[in-house]
This record gives sequence, C-alpha cells and structure tokens, in this order.
Amino acid sequence: MLEKLKQEVYEANMLLEKLNLVTFTWGNVSGMDWESGLMVIKPSGVSYEKLTPADMVVMDLNYQVVEGKLKPSTDAPTHIYLYNKYRFLQGICHTHSIYATSWCQAGVDLPAQGTTHADNFYGPVPCTKHLDMQKIKDNYEYETGVLIAATFAERNLDPQAMPAILVNNHGPFTFGESPYKAVEYAKVLETVGQMTFQSYLLNGYKNNVKQELLDKHYFRKHGKDSYYGQ
Amino acid sequence: MLEKLKQEVYEANMLLEKLNLVTFTWGNVSGMDWESGLMVIKPSGVSYEKLTPADMVVMDLNYQVVEGKLKPSTDAPTHIYLYNKYRFLQGICHTHSIYATSWCQAGVDLPAQGTTHADNFYGPVPCTKHLDMQKIKDNYEYETGVLIAATFAERNLDPQAMPAILVNNHGPFTFGESPYKAVEYAKVLETVGQMTFQSYLLNGYKNNVKQELLDKHYFRKHGKDSYYGQ
Amino acid sequence: MLEKLKQEVYEANMLLEKLNLVTFTWGNVSGMDWESGLMVIKPSGVSYEKLTPADMVVMDLNYQVVEGKLKPSTDAPTHIYLYNKYRFLQGICHTHSIYATSWCQAGVDLPAQGTTHADNFYGPVPCTKHLDMQKIKDNYEYETGVLIAATFAERNLDPQAMPAILVNNHGPFTFGESPYKAVEYAKVLETVGQMTFQSYLLNGYKNNVKQELLDKHYFRKHGKDSYYGQ
Amino acid sequence: MLEKLKQEVYEANMLLEKLNLVTFTWGNVSGMDWESGLMVIKPSGVSYEKLTPADMVVMDLNYQVVEGKLKPSTDAPTHIYLYNKYRFLQGICHTHSIYATSWCQAGVDLPAQGTTHADNFYGPVPCTKHLDMQKIKDNYEYETGVLIAATFAERNLDPQAMPAILVNNHGPFTFGESPYKAVEYAKVLETVGQMTFQSYLLNGYKNNVKQELLDKHYFRKHGKDSYYGQ
Repeated sequence: MLEKLKQEVYEANMLLEKLNLVTFTWGNVSGMDWESGLMVIKPSGVSYEKLTPADMVVMDLNYQVVEGKLKPSTDAPTHIYLYNKYRFLQGICHTHSIYATSWCQAGVDLPAQGTTHADNFYGPVPCTKHLDMQKIKDNYEYETGVLIAATFAERNLDPQAMPAILVNNHGPFTFGESPYKAVEYAKVLETVGQMTFQSYLLNGYKNNVKQELLDKHYFRKHGKDSYYGQ
Repeated sequence: MLEKLKQEVYEANMLLEKLNLVTFTWGNVSGMDWESGLMVIKPSGVSYEKLTPADMVVMDLNYQVVEGKLKPSTDAPTHIYLYNKYRFLQGICHTHSIYATSWCQAGVDLPAQGTTHADNFYGPVPCTKHLDMQKIKDNYEYETGVLIAATFAERNLDPQAMPAILVNNHGPFTFGESPYKAVEYAKVLETVGQMTFQSYLLNGYKNNVKQELLDKHYFRKHGKDSYYGQ
Repeated sequence: MLEKLKQEVYEANMLLEKLNLVTFTWGNVSGMDWESGLMVIKPSGVSYEKLTPADMVVMDLNYQVVEGKLKPSTDAPTHIYLYNKYRFLQGICHTHSIYATSWCQAGVDLPAQGTTHADNFYGPVPCTKHLDMQKIKDNYEYETGVLIAATFAERNLDPQAMPAILVNNHGPFTFGESPYKAVEYAKVLETVGQMTFQSYLLNGYKNNVKQELLDKHYFRKHGKDSYYGQ
Repeated sequence: MLEKLKQEVYEANMLLEKLNLVTFTWGNVSGMDWESGLMVIKPSGVSYEKLTPADMVVMDLNYQVVEGKLKPSTDAPTHIYLYNKYRFLQGICHTHSIYATSWCQAGVDLPAQGTTHADNFYGPVPCTKHLDMQKIKDNYEYETGVLIAATFAERNLDPQAMPAILVNNHGPFTFGESPYKAVEYAKVLETVGQMTFQSYLLNGYKNNVKQELLDKHYFRKHGKDSYYGQ
C-alpha cells in the first residue's frame, strides 16, 4: 500500500539526519497521496538506524490509522490538520533543528536579511502566537495545526509563498510539493536561521532586505518568469 | 563481576565521544547495581581509544574500590554521594560539554524557553551556588555531591523531574534510570544549552515557556499519562 | 575544448563542498582563459554528486554560451562583467557561506582585526551599497558586477590587493589568479568572518589592526619582498 | 639526525589538523632536543596531505638551519627566541584556531570562568600588548618572541603555570614538555576559548572563578600533590 510514497517519506526522514537537522528522533516528515486521500508519516520514537520504509504509518484525513504496526508520530494531528487545510501540500516536515528552534524560542519572526532567505521565503518567516491554556490541555497537537493556519491567514500567507513557520516556544514546520522538498526547506530555514542570528547580532534589524530585492529573488526562482539556478 | 553493567557503563562512556560531548577524557559515566550495592565507573585518565569494558572500576557506597586495576575517575566521590542520596538512580554522567559548561561558567540557571527543554526537564535547569573555600580545600569532590543535593532540596526538585544540574564554574551532571539514559540527558542538555544561548541573545528572558506548556510537554512524555513519541 | 580549464573549474567547484562553503548548490566558480577570451563556469542547479567536468559551460565575454548542454549559472553575467573589467583575473568564486554571508546581511565592512585577515586582505573587506530598484529589475546579475567594480573603484581597491567583496544583503565574491585560488580566498573569508564576528561581539571595533601590522603581514606574503610561509 | 624528534614533531603537526585547530597550513609545531641544542620545526607552506617526517627542518638556537631541504616555518625565530628564554620547554605550538584567535583579535585576556580553564591554566590567559611600529618593521617574528616573554615577565608567569598566551591581533602560542603536549594545550585553549566566549556573552565577567577554586583545580592536577584524572 502506497509503497512508493512510503519509500519517499522514509528517505526524507533519513535525510533529516544526514543534513544535521535532528538530535535523536526529534523530527518527523510526512507525505500526502491526494488520489487516495491518505498520508504516510514516520512512526513514533524509532531511531534512524532502525527505521525502514515498511515502518511508515498510513493515516487518513479523519486522523485514523489505516495501516501500520507502529504508532504514528505524536505530531500526526498537526500534519493532518494542515493537509485538510491546504489541499495542495504534498509534504510536511517538523524538526527541532538548532538555529530555527532558537528563533521559535525567542518568539519573534525571522526577518529577511538576505537573498538566501528571499530565494526561498517571500518575507519574514512568521512566528506564531502562544496557544491558550485550554487548547494546550485539550487537544494540543491538533490545535498546533489550527494555530499555524491561523497565523498564515492573519498574515495573508500560505505555505506556497511561505513554506516555513516558527511555532512559538516549540520548533519549525516546513512544507513542500513533496516530502523531499519539505526537508529541503527545513535545511534552508536552519541555514538562514544561523545567518540571520549572526547578522542580527552584528546589526539588529537595520539592514533587512528591501521589497524590490525580495521580489526579484523570490520571483526569479518561483512562478512563471523564474529563470534561476546557481 | 558485574560484567553486564561494566559493558553498559563502557558503552555509555564511549557514547559521550560519539555524541560530541567530550574533549580528550573530560567526562565520566557510572552505573549502579542496587542488588549488590556496587557502582561501576570509568577509570581515571584513560583515552577513549584504549578504553575496554574490563577497565571499568567497581566501588561500593562507602567510597572504596572493590575491583579494578586502574584508579577510578577523580569524580567518583561525587557520584557515590549522589547514589547514597537518591536510591533510585541507576546512572550518572558528568561532562564538560561546551554549551552546558558555558551556562555553568555564567553561573545562572538555564531557563526553559522551548518544548525541547520542557520535554525533558520540568523547569529551569538549576545552577548551584559556589562552594565555600573550606569545603573546596577539604573534600572537594564529595562536597560537590553535597552541593548538588542541597541545590535540588532548596528547589524542591529531585533527579527524576530534573535529571540535570549545572555545577557553578564547573560543568553539568545528568542522571537516569540507566547509564545510557544519563548520557542521553547530557546530550539533551547540550542541545538545549545551545538553543537557549541563542534565543537568550535574541530576546533575553522575555519568552520563557509558560507553566501550562511546560506541564503539557513534560507530562505527555513522563508519568502515567504519557503518550509521546516524535 | 578547454579541457584543462574545465577540469580545474570542476575541481574548484567540488572543493566548495569539501571546504564546507556551500549548502545544496548555492555557489559557483568560474575560470578564465585569456588566450581564447573564453570563460568556463559551473552549470546551473546541478548537485555536486552529479557534476562532471564535461558539464562545465563555456561562454565568451559578450555573455554568449559557446559550448555546453546545460544552462550556465544564473550568476554568469556577474562573472563576465568582472572579467571584462579586470583583465588579469583568472578565477571568480561566489558562495553563500554562512559567516561571510552574515556580514553581507549586516551590510557592513568586515574590519581587519587580526593577522589572519591581514595576510590575505589589505584592509577591511568592503561591503557594497544597495542596488537601485531599477537596476534590480532590469539586469540584476549584470548590475551586481557593475556594483562590485564601482565599490572597488570608490575605495581605490582592486581584486589583487582585495580578493574579496561582500555584496550587500546577498553574499561574497572572491577572486584569484586561478579558480582554485578564488576558492581558497572564499575559505579565508569565511574563517576570518567567523573570527571577527566573535571578536566584534567581545570588543566591538576597538582593537582593529593598525596600519603597520596590516602592511607587515600583507607585504611579507605578497609582492616582491614576500618571504612568508607558516 | 634526530629521527625520533622529527617523527614526534611531524605527528604533533598532523594532530593540529585532526583536532580542527588549523585551516590550510596556518599552524606550526616545534620540538626541542636539549642534549644537542637543536630544534625541529615544520617546514613552511607544505600542506598536511604532503607532509612527511623527513620534511621537518632542524635549526640551532642561533637561528641557523642545520638540516632540511625546505625552508622552516616563517615563525621559527619566535620559537627559537622562546627556547633560548625558557630552557625547560620541549614543545611550542602556534595556530590560528578560531576561538582562541577571536580573543587575540579582541585584544583582551581570556578570563578563567570555569574549572576546564583552571585545570590547565593558572589564571587568565594573558593577551600581549601591541608591538611598536619599528619592531614590526625590523625583525617581526623575533620581536614576537620578545613580546611573549615580556608579557610573561610582567605578569610574573612562565610557560609552566601558564602554557598559553594570546598574541594581540594575531593568534595563540602554547607550550609543553613535548610537542604533543603543546598541541594538547592548543586544543584546551580553543575549547575554553569557545566556552568563555559564550559565558561572557551570557554574563560578562561577573562569574570569574574565585582564587580558591583556581588553586584547587590547578594544584590537584599539577605539582607534587596532584591526584587528578577524569
């Protein structure tokens, strides 16, 4: 069942480790098959050394496990909420990568200070507000998905122009047209997170990119007039 | 004698190097066998390349070597004091890992600024006070154990809810239900130490986690209602 | 055609990855053959794993592709403008290496604070101004070359005494008498970028090198009286 | 001639790379044979890949090459001055390692903020003053040695209690009873340089170690009452 997607999701999860985006098992990637309406996600708490494609868990958009001997990642309800909301997404990645998570812990947006950022994210990467106490208690992982979508809505963004978000006090989620692409954005976010941590310490917010440079870099790489490649 | 525990303690010590938690031989892990009342600890000053399971030193809770051709780690009295005090501990780890030690050098608690922290440590990781001059002179390593336990007592904590402590001007100790688990917490502490060093530079103490988020993350992973796994 | 130079340019591009100067494909190196007036440059968007010497693209100084099945790097017009301007250059390298790019993002010159810097760069590494909106829109990569040359002219510098420049909000370019040498300067710049990020956080601009030390280090390594080697 | 020392000096130089203390060839280690009064030092500008024990250069204390096909390291006069001055030294190491050099660039002493420091260096690691213009011009590398010794004298220190020094705007030198030991101190200095860079950013100079803790850690490891080993 969904062997090809399981393989892809497995490889995307393994890539997290290769790209130095995870400590222990602190990360998870999922992939969506829109034809069947089923999501494939990493199982919970299995070390990368032992993980196999067959361990991947299949779930539907009603939050039910359809196939899999192992428990799905605890964060599965966040992923499923977001697939329900953004019916073009095909991959979601969550990590606790060190620099991106530092920005989440600081609780501030990651400003666009360079073209590395602008090539990938159209504006500051938003940081969510805090969840209410009641939502934390009742249905925490689901509410995290609601919070992410609410943040995008408030900013007039969606995961296509902004394939990354910082969940306050927690960690980043990234999005893509495939599980691999979601992981790629997780690496971009981590790299930009480090660069901008450093440029912020050197010069604060004074040299954020101007709109015209943001437009140029974003649109030369994305959309119908793109021509980019280093 | 205690061959299985020696192997475990040996592997936990070797893991320190694999997880980039030590420079040269600056770290030591011990394990406790409560049935016999004996502790197994790394010998003093042996490089990781040359270390073997048979080199591990066996000591009793009266601070005496029971078996072993090599001298035990200089820090053995700290470990033994803590096993005497916390009779549920089965592993203790001490390192000079770079970020955790930076917080010890700063002499301040490591605040909880994110869920990576809250998943593992129930509140700020405490930093001890300074030892008195007389205690430093008389029985330094033993007094370090006394200081750690006094700090936990003052904060109404114990090494189960808070499996890590920062010894002021020195380095971290971590605790666990096995030698492996103590090393795992040493890695968590180092990672969180880096994240929070960075988020502190970005935003000071302004975005520390609220109690409800701390509760949620800590209790979804620990205790009778735990359901966690990424 | 230009097989030797293609090999050199290929190796210089591969070296970027070995020296930890690139994430994904975010970098490009070119080499110039002055006899034929032709430039060899990395193709666009090919991963380092798949890159071969035969993939290199040959272009002339009129910005035309002379040979090559793949598209040249998007940044090719910047390279070509600079070869036209500095007819002694034989290699150009562009990266988004993390520390050098942080200085670009901060939008400030990288001050000379030590002899590591002075051995290689005769004074602060200049950071360019911002490009005008119109230039960004019209011919962005070409105008980036113009901006670099204008910055050198304003400072009375050229890429021989100063084989590096920081393009504001973007990333560094480095120069050399060969593709390899341009990459070497990219590594020097990254290293000095980290050292000076740190010394700046410790002591601001207070301990910049004095002119006499700058002269000594630069001229013991470069020019007719050089005698240097560590 | 001095085959054993050449091998030792060769291995100590290779260790610089293994311990991540050098970029390119920016470092050099020497060893002294007091019986013959001869020093063995790394040749100038040879990459670590190509270096062999037979490449090592033999010099006497009058600054003359006694044996060797290659030029000695440019820094040889600094080494020789110091062997002349401290007739117990058997190894000297110079690097541009990143954190230690950052402190040199800042131009301030590296304060003792923890026991990792106190275990190895008895007090703050001194940073030298700046050299006069005339001394830089006339005999720069020799004068660097004079400056190092003058700094130790002014502070009532010598390379036994303080086997490291920060040359202002330049880089660290470390000392030992063997070439290996000098490299070991270079690694300790780099590690402590990172820890204290970080603790300084967290809490300034407020938590420097007190004299009694410095004494305890230094003397439990060094001198006649030493008993240390982790």
